[in-house]
Amino acid sequence: MQPRNIVIIGGVAAGMKTACRLRRLDANAEITVIDRTKNVSYGACPLPYYIEGLYDDLNEVRKTPVGVLRDETFFRNVKGFNTLTRVDATAIDREQRTVTTRHLDSNEKQCLNYDTLVMATGNTPIIPPLPGVELPGVLPLKTMEQAEQLNQLAETARHAVIVGGGLIGLEVAEALVKRGVHVTLLEMKDEVLASAMDFDCVAQVHQELRKNGVNLRLGEALQSIEGNGKVEQVITEQASYPADMVLLAIGVRPVTELAQAAGLEIGPTGAIAVDDQLRTSDPAIFAVGDCAETTDLLSGEKVYVPLGSTANKHGRVAANVICGHNDRFPGILGSLVVKVFDLNVARTGLSVEDANLLGIDFVSMIVSSPDIAHLYPGNKPIIIKLIAERSSRKLLGAQVVGPGVVDKRLDIIVAALSLGATVDQLAQFDLCYAPPFAGAMDALLQTANALRNKLDGLADSMSPAEAYQLHQQGEDVLMLDVRSPAENDEIRIPGTTLLPLGALRTKLDQLPKDKLIIPFCKLSLRGFEAQIILQQAGFTNVRYMEGGILAWPFELEQ
Amino acid sequence: MQPRNIVIIGGVAAGMKTACRLRRLDANAEITVIDRTKNVSYGACPLPYYIEGLYDDLNEVRKTPVGVLRDETFFRNVKGFNTLTRVDATAIDREQRTVTTRHLDSNEKQCLNYDTLVMATGNTPIIPPLPGVELPGVLPLKTMEQAEQLNQLAETARHAVIVGGGLIGLEVAEALVKRGVHVTLLEMKDEVLASAMDFDCVAQVHQELRKNGVNLRLGEALQSIEGNGKVEQVITEQASYPADMVLLAIGVRPVTELAQAAGLEIGPTGAIAVDDQLRTSDPAIFAVGDCAETTDLLSGEKVYVPLGSTANKHGRVAANVICGHNDRFPGILGSLVVKVFDLNVARTGLSVEDANLLGIDFVSMIVSSPDIAHLYPGNKPIIIKLIAERSSRKLLGAQVVGPGVVDKRLDIIVAALSLGATVDQLAQFDLCYAPPFAGAMDALLQTANALRNKLDGLADSMSPAEAYQLHQQGEDVLMLDVRSPAENDEIRIPGTTLLPLGALRTKLDQLPKDKLIIPFCKLSLRGFEAQIILQQAGFTNVRYMEGGILAWPFELEQ
Repeated sequence: MQPRNIVIIGGVAAGMKTACRLRRLDANAEITVIDRTKNVSYGACPLPYYIEGLYDDLNEVRKTPVGVLRDETFFRNVKGFNTLTRVDATAIDREQRTVTTRHLDSNEKQCLNYDTLVMATGNTPIIPPLPGVELPGVLPLKTMEQAEQLNQLAETARHAVIVGGGLIGLEVAEALVKRGVHVTLLEMKDEVLASAMDFDCVAQVHQELRKNGVNLRLGEALQSIEGNGKVEQVITEQASYPADMVLLAIGVRPVTELAQAAGLEIGPTGAIAVDDQLRTSDPAIFAVGDCAETTDLLSGEKVYVPLGSTANKHGRVAANVICGHNDRFPGILGSLVVKVFDLNVARTGLSVEDANLLGIDFVSMIVSSPDIAHLYPGNKPIIIKLIAERSSRKLLGAQVVGPGVVDKRLDIIVAALSLGATVDQLAQFDLCYAPPFAGAMDALLQTANALRNKLDGLADSMSPAEAYQLHQQGEDVLMLDVRSPAENDEIRIPGTTLLPLGALRTKLDQLPKDKLIIPFCKLSLRGFEAQIILQQAGFTNVRYMEGGILAWPFELEQ
Repeated sequence: MQPRNIVIIGGVAAGMKTACRLRRLDANAEITVIDRTKNVSYGACPLPYYIEGLYDDLNEVRKTPVGVLRDETFFRNVKGFNTLTRVDATAIDREQRTVTTRHLDSNEKQCLNYDTLVMATGNTPIIPPLPGVELPGVLPLKTMEQAEQLNQLAETARHAVIVGGGLIGLEVAEALVKRGVHVTLLEMKDEVLASAMDFDCVAQVHQELRKNGVNLRLGEALQSIEGNGKVEQVITEQASYPADMVLLAIGVRPVTELAQAAGLEIGPTGAIAVDDQLRTSDPAIFAVGDCAETTDLLSGEKVYVPLGSTANKHGRVAANVICGHNDRFPGILGSLVVKVFDLNVARTGLSVEDANLLGIDFVSMIVSSPDIAHLYPGNKPIIIKLIAERSSRKLLGAQVVGPGVVDKRLDIIVAALSLGATVDQLAQFDLCYAPPFAGAMDALLQTANALRNKLDGLADSMSPAEAYQLHQQGEDVLMLDVRSPAENDEIRIPGTTLLPLGALRTKLDQLPKDKLIIPFCKLSLRGFEAQIILQQAGFTNVRYMEGGILAWPFELEQ
């Protein structure tokens, strides 16, 4: 039997993973990876941390955990397949099953036969068609060369403008601030992170950016970039900003030109359409990683969320399927995590906005809590928002934000969402407990129980954003601070009334029965307690503020 | 309607949680908590950290996250129920539905009526009936007073002996070492942590204890304690140890005397038998927390695992059920986490030993990996062991050990086990990814995939303990180190052969075809790769060593 002949276009995460796995499954296959660049198999995600100075050798992003460079020699000797670098795939002939290639240095053309072709062409940064984007000092961050360029610009730059508040924009903002560069971050929308999170949570990110000196300009779009031979300033409709360097980070798009020219189906997201085995519309051609679309596990909709973690999973599934093993990639939950200065920020599943768009009847809950036992040194707060469908009580999504450990709680929800768990099941998870790791009732279980209380009609509550809005609109509400006088002295929400929880049962006559009362505290426990006490005492118009002052992303008086 | 009358015996975690929840659900109920001690509602789990000196005010263990002392006044004013301290429940009359009590100071007797009675009598340390256990300076750690006593003994003690290598023994060992006390830890069994973990994992704990100067004596039982007016030395069959203080930490038993006297059914574990709504054999009486048994979710067997996290869950379920709401406590997975010096140690579900006892046909896999992206500063190794049933591929349990983040991975498995996930489902979880939080393929997903490889017959492997045994028994095996010469120079397993992976494909003729070859590396990736290369080259007798040198809990040459 002829060994099968597999050509893979693109040698970064998904392509290389596919090739490595193929070799493990098939000792005899002819496996060839071609890539336009010299630097195959690099990790793009750690590039912002190079600019920040967290590691010195840029080649680290191409090394294995034990420090071996993943170059062509490595892939040949260790992994057992051929990698052709600086080679561009220029055309696919699906009938003949050939790929035409051109060497970018020698211009040499070649024609490679394939039995199976794998598209792993990745993504490319979107460059807005605006005046000045071609000026020296203006660039996106995608390649190692661009990381080196940004690193060198940061050496001397006083002012940087970052266009776009997505993951890369936020990570590079922190990197440049830590390098001593003054950073202006322009975001066209009213919030960063591209609507991945609800306002309550993303507002914490806005605060953190501002606290660290980032000039955050929301709802402000880039108009042009100006400079004489190199970038000097950035112009928006509202203002102009001096700039010695500009990062264009408004997003990426899948690289699909070759697939389109070959007549492969492109999905509604603009990425290559694939089934759950990563097969394109041509069964001899697979697409993996950042050039392929995927399915949102909750909405069932096709989405485009390019991520290194998904790329690695794609590669394994595609290789398995190519070798005749049964495997499938079910889809994603849109899980994200990002470190923004001292704030950890994570989300998965549906946000409130997502659920609204899908017409789902849901209930959400926000709880603030220490991340580990509150008397164990080093504990830090986190804010968890959980969303569940009202009728089925199935979890829909979560957002976790704070200086404390957020990724653990997020990943537990990822598991729960992947398996269709209800909030009631979550509440009984036997999570591991010891004071250095969690409270006796982990913050996540507390949140699950608070959400159950709300679903069951025991908790009547609103988010800080909702309370803020009522308060701002001059509605006749009583924002009731049930913390201690000492806590109130230290920091407080403007225009609120203090009545400590311990005195509440005895001072009920001081409170109006006709007004909406919104009790709150530092976290949310006492606020909830106050709501119960008031309702049990006959007050019918009470809703506590979820998450307490810790989750209040607006002004506070000190 | 008469308000219902609820008496709760025991005012620590489970009792107080039940009372608080009851009040929230029912404004009118008469709720009385009685407790023998003065210090109600204290957390026992943080007591070792007081001895370690991580917080100064012992009352912290009775405070809310915002620093309010949870005393009788707090429970009356804030939570709205009565707490009777220094009051002992001496008898239950189930026909009359009364509890007889006696005040420990005034000797005053009282008879409390109940509609519903909740037993929350907790656990008590087991004191072995051996000579000298009554000597001053010999004590268990359960109460705040004992913590204070141990704290004071540690001031002047030079030598401490800890009897028992369970959670409390390990935590106090660390605390005392950090206080400058020389610690001998006696454990009757061959391993610490009471067989909760398999040897591969628990051996890491043994190493960590010894590395930190703990004189760990395994398989050595206490015979007697000697001293003149106070403890001076501890005698075992093998030796005697000087001791200025002795911690008795051989385990706890449920406090069931009152329940037994009242004729309530005691389960096979010795704890009060309850159904999944925490009802005892008398439907008017509930039992919650450390006096009640629970069900192992995987084996379906009744187990006794007293833990603060379970106690809190119990309280909520019991209160819900008492108030007529539908709720249930499904059971536990035996999840544990403990910090032992710089090692984090966690387990959940079934161990290999558990699975063997249950007659389950399983497959296990050990993988070592950095806990976050390997080029991000501060990354630390973790070792994950995953166990799955062979036929159904359902996950059965996990053990995670290392200086890195173990609790996150453990809790993801808790979620997966709670929902009956297969290892194939786990491998596709869309866990959140960014370099400060995880690798692109999180360590847990890597382990899942390695286990799938083993289930699918692609990976052929053995645990380090198995390799050690073969090696030790003088079997004719070739332990093949496929790391680099530099890595081998630094540290190596004695009696192994070096052949770097990069050279393996070209030097196959140097290897014997008739011997069992056990390739290994630092983690396990190259070991697996070597196994594949060798098998693809016609070697039929190859099994790589899981987890690599990092998971090797035996001697190494430097």
